[in-house]
Amino acid sequence: MIFRQLFEQETGTYTYLIADPETKEAALVDPVVETLERDLQLLKELGLTLCYCLETHIHADHITATGKLRELTNCQGVVPANATAKCADIFLGDGEILRVGSVEIQAIATPGHTDSHNAYLVNGDRVLTGDSLLIRGCGRTDFQSGSTTGLYHSVTQQLFTLPPETLVYPGHDYKGFTVSTIGEEKQHNPRFSTQTENSFVNLMTNLNLPNPKKIMEAVPANEHCGKITVKI
Amino acid sequence: MIFRQLFEQETGTYTYLIADPETKEAALVDPVVETLERDLQLLKELGLTLCYCLETHIHADHITATGKLRELTNCQGVVPANATAKCADIFLGDGEILRVGSVEIQAIATPGHTDSHNAYLVNGDRVLTGDSLLIRGCGRTDFQSGSTTGLYHSVTQQLFTLPPETLVYPGHDYKGFTVSTIGEEKQHNPRFSTQTENSFVNLMTNLNLPNPKKIMEAVPANEHCGKITVKI
Repeated sequence: MIFRQLFEQETGTYTYLIADPETKEAALVDPVVETLERDLQLLKELGLTLCYCLETHIHADHITATGKLRELTNCQGVVPANATAKCADIFLGDGEILRVGSVEIQAIATPGHTDSHNAYLVNGDRVLTGDSLLIRGCGRTDFQSGSTTGLYHSVTQQLFTLPPETLVYPGHDYKGFTVSTIGEEKQHNPRFSTQTENSFVNLMTNLNLPNPKKIMEAVPANEHCGKITVKI
Repeated sequence: MIFRQLFEQETGTYTYLIADPETKEAALVDPVVETLERDLQLLKELGLTLCYCLETHIHADHITATGKLRELTNCQGVVPANATAKCADIFLGDGEILRVGSVEIQAIATPGHTDSHNAYLVNGDRVLTGDSLLIRGCGRTDFQSGSTTGLYHSVTQQLFTLPPETLVYPGHDYKGFTVSTIGEEKQHNPRFSTQTENSFVNLMTNLNLPNPKKIMEAVPANEHCGKITVKI
């Protein structure tokens, strides 16, 4: 498998490139419109055909590159089963598998940060956790129908039941971490290792974070697969 | 092997953590003083004993964390054989091997960015290239006794003779790339794939880059293994 982690500095977002080196079929997970040219160039240089753009969820902090990538390539947009993005081509429910050549990408429904959210287990040994589980942290739950108890259940009862050696590749990082493992996060993530469900709810309810700068622009655009059709 | 890539945003610097999961012996390559606490915390959480801090070279853009890590742990400082850092504990020449538990780290002398510079080949399948070869780029050669022809030879006659599937982990990145391969850089790095030695020298001689912001502070500090002994 070709597996590449790519970073967008302004919003601290990770995009992932996944491809089969034999068939040259490729997928991008959570591509960002600002890094579209970089990612297109990389696909070209590696001789890959982009088949799918997957979203872990409808993002509030950046605009997806999926809309432009669908215009420029023959790729299909893939979103969680209940995502508010009617424009998408494929809606992937919990446990469903998408194949990129010989690579298997299995959706794990992990709502909480937003009400529709998938983590993606890639070839069984690494999980792209989007904004559910971050390295030593987790996504916020205070907008887009987020649910603190939902996130607690998604992380502790879904992600933490994966084998401890499973690699964790998050959707964001703000401290310079790139990868962790399920075992490490179970033991050392301060949002889960030392919190009961009740104390987690209290903690998350009192974060008092400012809204993401681009939320008013990003959410409506991403609900239209990255097409900026809504004027603010 | 435990292998972690860690990022310092201000200077776009990658630090690498390498460890033997059985013996718990660990090394850090190119640690940065600003991310000292993060890296100490990670070592502690993983239950690792820091044995070595390796420098690929004497950095001009940031201050190494090696000095503080030597004070706080029993680790030894490792630098290239001819580095101007008398304070170091181990000077590693071309082809010499440092063992971290069962992990083998082999020095490859790759001067050019600076006159003393090592790349480190880890367990034969991945090379930490420091500021010699970057992803689709290379380090500058216009200070600290840099040599444009030296860098050209280091990259094309040393690094590019490694197997094409060897993973390339650079010392810096400014575009969001995390990893590449030797084969990919031979084919697609615009500083080498389309340049003769002469055109590379011309290109590098005319970059006209501003000096790194911290050069007057960083170089003397790093020549003292990160101890800030020189007042500007």
